[in-house]
Amino acid sequence: MPQYALGLDFGTSSVRALIVDCSDGREAGTGIAHYASGEDGILLDATDHNLARQNPADFPGALLAAIRDANQQASANGFRGDQLVGIGTDATGSTPIPVDMEGMPVAMREPFKQNLAAMAWLWKDHTSHKEAAEIAEKARAQDKPYLAQCGGTYSSEWLWSKALRCARTAPEVFAATHTWMELCDFIPSRLTQLGVNVPRSICAAGHKGMYAEEWGGLPDKEFLNSVDPALGGLRERMSEKAYPSDRIAGPLSEERAQSFGLKAGMPVAVGILDAHAGAVGSGVAPGRMVKILGTSTCDILVAPVEVDVPDIPGVAGIVPGSVIPGMIGIEAGQSAVGDIFAWWARVCGRSQESLSEEAAGLRAGESGLLALDWNNGNRNVLTDPLLTGLLVGQTLHTSAAEIYRALIEATAFGARKIIRRIEEHGVPVSEIVACGGIADKSPLAMQIYADVLNMPIRLSRSSQAAALGAAIFGAVVGGVFADVVSAQAAMVGFRDLEYRPHPSSASVYQPLFSLYEDVHDGFGLPGVQDSSTIMKELIRIKVGRNDEPVAPR
Amino acid sequence: MPQYALGLDFGTSSVRALIVDCSDGREAGTGIAHYASGEDGILLDATDHNLARQNPADFPGALLAAIRDANQQASANGFRGDQLVGIGTDATGSTPIPVDMEGMPVAMREPFKQNLAAMAWLWKDHTSHKEAAEIAEKARAQDKPYLAQCGGTYSSEWLWSKALRCARTAPEVFAATHTWMELCDFIPSRLTQLGVNVPRSICAAGHKGMYAEEWGGLPDKEFLNSVDPALGGLRERMSEKAYPSDRIAGPLSEERAQSFGLKAGMPVAVGILDAHAGAVGSGVAPGRMVKILGTSTCDILVAPVEVDVPDIPGVAGIVPGSVIPGMIGIEAGQSAVGDIFAWWARVCGRSQESLSEEAAGLRAGESGLLALDWNNGNRNVLTDPLLTGLLVGQTLHTSAAEIYRALIEATAFGARKIIRRIEEHGVPVSEIVACGGIADKSPLAMQIYADVLNMPIRLSRSSQAAALGAAIFGAVVGGVFADVVSAQAAMVGFRDLEYRPHPSSASVYQPLFSLYEDVHDGFGLPGVQDSSTIMKELIRIKVGRNDEPVAPR
Repeated sequence: MPQYALGLDFGTSSVRALIVDCSDGREAGTGIAHYASGEDGILLDATDHNLARQNPADFPGALLAAIRDANQQASANGFRGDQLVGIGTDATGSTPIPVDMEGMPVAMREPFKQNLAAMAWLWKDHTSHKEAAEIAEKARAQDKPYLAQCGGTYSSEWLWSKALRCARTAPEVFAATHTWMELCDFIPSRLTQLGVNVPRSICAAGHKGMYAEEWGGLPDKEFLNSVDPALGGLRERMSEKAYPSDRIAGPLSEERAQSFGLKAGMPVAVGILDAHAGAVGSGVAPGRMVKILGTSTCDILVAPVEVDVPDIPGVAGIVPGSVIPGMIGIEAGQSAVGDIFAWWARVCGRSQESLSEEAAGLRAGESGLLALDWNNGNRNVLTDPLLTGLLVGQTLHTSAAEIYRALIEATAFGARKIIRRIEEHGVPVSEIVACGGIADKSPLAMQIYADVLNMPIRLSRSSQAAALGAAIFGAVVGGVFADVVSAQAAMVGFRDLEYRPHPSSASVYQPLFSLYEDVHDGFGLPGVQDSSTIMKELIRIKVGRNDEPVAPR
Repeated sequence: MPQYALGLDFGTSSVRALIVDCSDGREAGTGIAHYASGEDGILLDATDHNLARQNPADFPGALLAAIRDANQQASANGFRGDQLVGIGTDATGSTPIPVDMEGMPVAMREPFKQNLAAMAWLWKDHTSHKEAAEIAEKARAQDKPYLAQCGGTYSSEWLWSKALRCARTAPEVFAATHTWMELCDFIPSRLTQLGVNVPRSICAAGHKGMYAEEWGGLPDKEFLNSVDPALGGLRERMSEKAYPSDRIAGPLSEERAQSFGLKAGMPVAVGILDAHAGAVGSGVAPGRMVKILGTSTCDILVAPVEVDVPDIPGVAGIVPGSVIPGMIGIEAGQSAVGDIFAWWARVCGRSQESLSEEAAGLRAGESGLLALDWNNGNRNVLTDPLLTGLLVGQTLHTSAAEIYRALIEATAFGARKIIRRIEEHGVPVSEIVACGGIADKSPLAMQIYADVLNMPIRLSRSSQAAALGAAIFGAVVGGVFADVVSAQAAMVGFRDLEYRPHPSSASVYQPLFSLYEDVHDGFGLPGVQDSSTIMKELIRIKVGRNDEPVAPR
């Protein structure tokens, strides 16, 4: 009898349900449902560009709609409900939700239904930058080891910063909150109806909550009290232990099974962050980095536990078991990638298709432009949400497509900076697998990445890599495979298409990257620098290109 | 009997003819004619953004059309041809034209009719930046005084750079050229048919050709030979002496008078550069700077000869008699202003009207953006055509209108930098009069300038200040006034509308200007600097503004 697994992937704007064949990873049915509230599912505040929230009341309906659609499509392909062996789930993060003692989001009851502070604090919410700096400062001052696995600093995107910000700016919400639950834990909790007792994800706790077995789980109460007694109190109401995603969170509850039209009691895996699920679904392995290229970017890598992975300054997370149980998970990323391209298309009132087409006709260095990819701050390797964008080299002839290309190049330079930093610390990167919206939709971006990184880039066979990764954990908890690596061997594949670097472009991107590093370090790090040659160097590179015949533009 | 003067203003894209009443400066008739060739009258080269030329064959037809239209309009207002007392002319510059022994442009005969090197080298042509650097270098090395009156360096926009570039890259054109004539000399030459014997403008020669009585006129042959024997040879075929524009260049020739429908023999004044004419038509006086705000900007100031005006490093020109005979003319400017706004409107596919309307709703500092105004290089105070644009502070929420406003602010900061430099050298600026397209069309830009400069700005009553200035010289050579100052007193006026600085905006522009200076000096001058606080400071200014209530955007 064929065996199937269900993967549930809670992205930034929508949830995706995927039913896959465990024997080969083939997709039998997909359902996608968008979150109802806000702009593309995100609640914004016109007076504060750092704010990004989500309404937890959107999740149950979207979940139901996506599962029903996937079920219906799979059924048309011969799938039968009793062939489903398990469910895996992933979600964006750190997207913590204030919940009550039953695990019900505070935002789902009065008087908090319109209160932004009671909502899910979406991963890209940066309102708590001051709080993040304070937590990092305190950890350093007390010589605590907590920052070791998160790049030497603590981000405004993460759990404790957000909870502290809530306690300080919306005390009425904080007081009504029993505990905070990551979205990737909230979903299994909802499926199993285990409430706040659901086993928590080590992926979320480790990468976002300073959780490590090494120091007994979450940061100790004394330390959190020293930051703010509100956090010390919260510590007592947080789960003590966290687990990798090859563990069962609990059985699918009777009530949920009924509403979804699925079998009750089926194992639901412990949740995982979406990027990490995407990496698993894209075949992440030692030496093979997976880049999930979407609105933002996550870079996921694993190293065997035998390898002594040191702290890598500026790299967001190094957590044993967070990606593949039994290996060390390394996470880095850029806080805006596709978001920057979409922003530019909005600003210049053009479609990305038309910009890409025109930009594809340009050559490396030809525009004389150089950009920084910091429109949403810099996650790695500077971990500074208060950095902003920069563009240099404009003339009166600079076109919208040239700027679009410069912005793609900027994100590729940012990616190169991260890989360099990881390699400098002894963890080699020999292969790239790309997945996510940009990998699927932008051959231009992929070729620029191959040229800038000077590495071939393969694509995940699945265009739904995160949901596939979640389904892989569903298959493992369903007992189809002994472990994640065996499941990957059966269920993960690559496309024939591969982006190979063009030597002529790669050689131009060499000096351009060096200029990017100058501007990156000049604006991102304290210290003095001579910037007066940058514009001239850009012209030198541009004119060098113009010595060859160039089509009129 | 009423007396009228005719002003002819050769702008970047069109020529304007203006017939004015000498008693009060009232405009009796105007005619405008666009140049037929190229893009908006400018010949471009897709492979070289530094190139900007004009076809001299466009000038005679445009001149005729403009005069006929002005004549027709004025006639309808009661003007009679025999009431015209004189003609003044002005033109863009340095816009030198290679001409033959008869003063005929080389580009008007075969085989040069399609040859870009034979055309008029428009003021904003920057192809000769290497030649400019070489000339400046040679002058410094030989301890020559030639750079003293042009800001300590020599520009790629000016005569000798362009002639040298032509000699080196288009020797066949240079060989066919007898001499080079500025456009503002070519027009009187055409009106009087005096050919190469027409008296040359001290304004053009002094500001653009290193001409000064002090060292016997143009630079000496020995020096020019040391740059290139081609220039040394050319020196012998250039006019020895140059004159202010209250002098008669010659009488209007019979042939021209007939074709224009005007009186033959009427005095034609020595030419003047358009900005300097605009300043005269706007009431320039000691302490009262005139800013001509158009595609680029010229700042014109005069100082009494009794004042010992020192060299002002980075200020383009200090030439006795160049603006008002008997006073020292000071010229500075920015190489792109309106051009930058128009560029941005093109890039974002919006009209400047719509961008202005939206940007007018923003407040100083609210966008968190800072730009440099160097998309066409920096004329003053850095005198470096190889500088390019820069924009910093973008987020994912930055709008096209915010960037538009930041670009206007950048040009205002550039203006402030110039005024500072002049004041630091002992020449006070106590009043601003604005004229030109931007002054007329953009109340937003004018208010921003008032706020950034923290000075009230008055507007020239005439929206055709350069043509009016030319007409003032026409009135003086026609004998209506004893001198230019008396003519200004009768013919120049101001509008009631005055832009006064808003203290709340001016106080925000104070720290923003200081950041502009940091980025300006960091990218424009050798030396080291810490740029790492710039993005944070911009956010600090932005957030400071947000503490007050802000309308959603």
